[in-house]
Amino acid sequence: MSSHTIQFRVRYPEVDQMGVVHHSHYFVYFEMARVEHLRSIGYSYADFEKQGILFAVVKLACTYKAPARYDDLIEVETTVTRVRAATIEHKYRVTKDGGKTLLAEAESTIACIDKNGELQQIPDFLLKEIGS
Amino acid sequence: MSSHTIQFRVRYPEVDQMGVVHHSHYFVYFEMARVEHLRSIGYSYADFEKQGILFAVVKLACTYKAPARYDDLIEVETTVTRVRAATIEHKYRVTKDGGKTLLAEAESTIACIDKNGELQQIPDFLLKEIGS
Amino acid sequence: MSSHTIQFRVRYPEVDQMGVVHHSHYFVYFEMARVEHLRSIGYSYADFEKQGILFAVVKLACTYKAPARYDDLIEVETTVTRVRAATIEHKYRVTKDGGKTLLAEAESTIACIDKNGELQQIPDFLLKEIGS
Amino acid sequence: MSSHTIQFRVRYPEVDQMGVVHHSHYFVYFEMARVEHLRSIGYSYADFEKQGILFAVVKLACTYKAPARYDDLIEVETTVTRVRAATIEHKYRVTKDGGKTLLAEAESTIACIDKNGELQQIPDFLLKEIGS
Repeated sequence: MSSHTIQFRVRYPEVDQMGVVHHSHYFVYFEMARVEHLRSIGYSYADFEKQGILFAVVKLACTYKAPARYDDLIEVETTVTRVRAATIEHKYRVTKDGGKTLLAEAESTIACIDKNGELQQIPDFLLKEIGS
Repeated sequence: MSSHTIQFRVRYPEVDQMGVVHHSHYFVYFEMARVEHLRSIGYSYADFEKQGILFAVVKLACTYKAPARYDDLIEVETTVTRVRAATIEHKYRVTKDGGKTLLAEAESTIACIDKNGELQQIPDFLLKEIGS
Repeated sequence: MSSHTIQFRVRYPEVDQMGVVHHSHYFVYFEMARVEHLRSIGYSYADFEKQGILFAVVKLACTYKAPARYDDLIEVETTVTRVRAATIEHKYRVTKDGGKTLLAEAESTIACIDKNGELQQIPDFLLKEIGS
Repeated sequence: MSSHTIQFRVRYPEVDQMGVVHHSHYFVYFEMARVEHLRSIGYSYADFEKQGILFAVVKLACTYKAPARYDDLIEVETTVTRVRAATIEHKYRVTKDGGKTLLAEAESTIACIDKNGELQQIPDFLLKEIGS
């Protein structure tokens, strides 16, 4: 299945007073990973939205293994695990130290919707690209 | 099991360009709900931290049912579903329209840790209060 | 001039690893203060947006005097200081301890724009309400 | 005076329902610019903090000229404009389209503090590096 890895640094306000990345920010990282995965296969999510092809998160699960700290260089690997008519499932592995320290593992389901929030079929060109 | 509901308004920057609350903010709402639940039974999480009793989120899952919009008056009901020696499980129901519209359902596991991030037993006084 | 005060608690992820509210969050607090000021005189900013009356921040300045900490009960007082054809100026005082500790002072200019981002005159009904 | 430019993409949750980057996020961008400026001259702000050399924002001002949108490739140029015993002043220019579109201009004053929040002199090695 299609997979992609992004790398970036933890920003200062993403870290809470425990000195670790607040758990809510991982979901922003996952979204960045999905968007860059799309870009890596030639698509812009920004363009999709302009064309009325939106994706809404319908399900998320994350397990936290070790803390990420300010200025850490983080990798998020995302893999498409299942593609259906209107939904895509991804899994994620968040690591640091060049992949040696596992920080979190997660899964999500996103649904293709139109500008009114109604479910729609994922366009064929995209299905072909990311489907198995 | 111990339960508590908070109510608050969606803030402007919590809403993305789809016009709905970004999925990552729900985890901030859940944390607020846990903290206010604690306050409702007489405890301050801020004080806990000063005493070296910290809680880290180790597991999260959320299913999104309907969108929340800017300025919506949101309710988050949180219930303690399981208490073990060092972890507490909660479930959450996010609603609007006075409870009539279900926005999301979620579950979390938080672990009691010390200032070095090491797992520790939940203090007895708290166990008695929130346990069954 | 028209003035209004809101009170709320600092949320956990608003605090950084220095243990103080990150300076960027004050601008979210100011926006909340403006919105609640509007509500206090009978208007909903959410409704304004639906009618094509938007406000964009064009200028901000803030001086920080003392830190806000997690779970602090904060007050933000906002006052309209000047109203022109298409812009409104506000000033803000952020305090805690029931107004005794000054945390920050700020000023902003917001401009009335339409859905295309073009400057437009502030509607008369609003001018009358908030103007001198 | 010492100057540095960073480039990065606007993230999805940084954009509000007007379809533009929320004004509060620019202050996060400025902080990133300061940190990367430090890194460019050989210093890690994360290391500074571990050594008890902290910087707190004491003053900010920003003027917004044009909106930034989701997925825009943004440049932030930061320049040290004044260095005193315990404070550093920066100015910022935020642009897109390879510098052609000016989005915002800003200024800040940061103060060197210790772990207790007390003002302290900026270390000599840093003064020499960033001062004129």
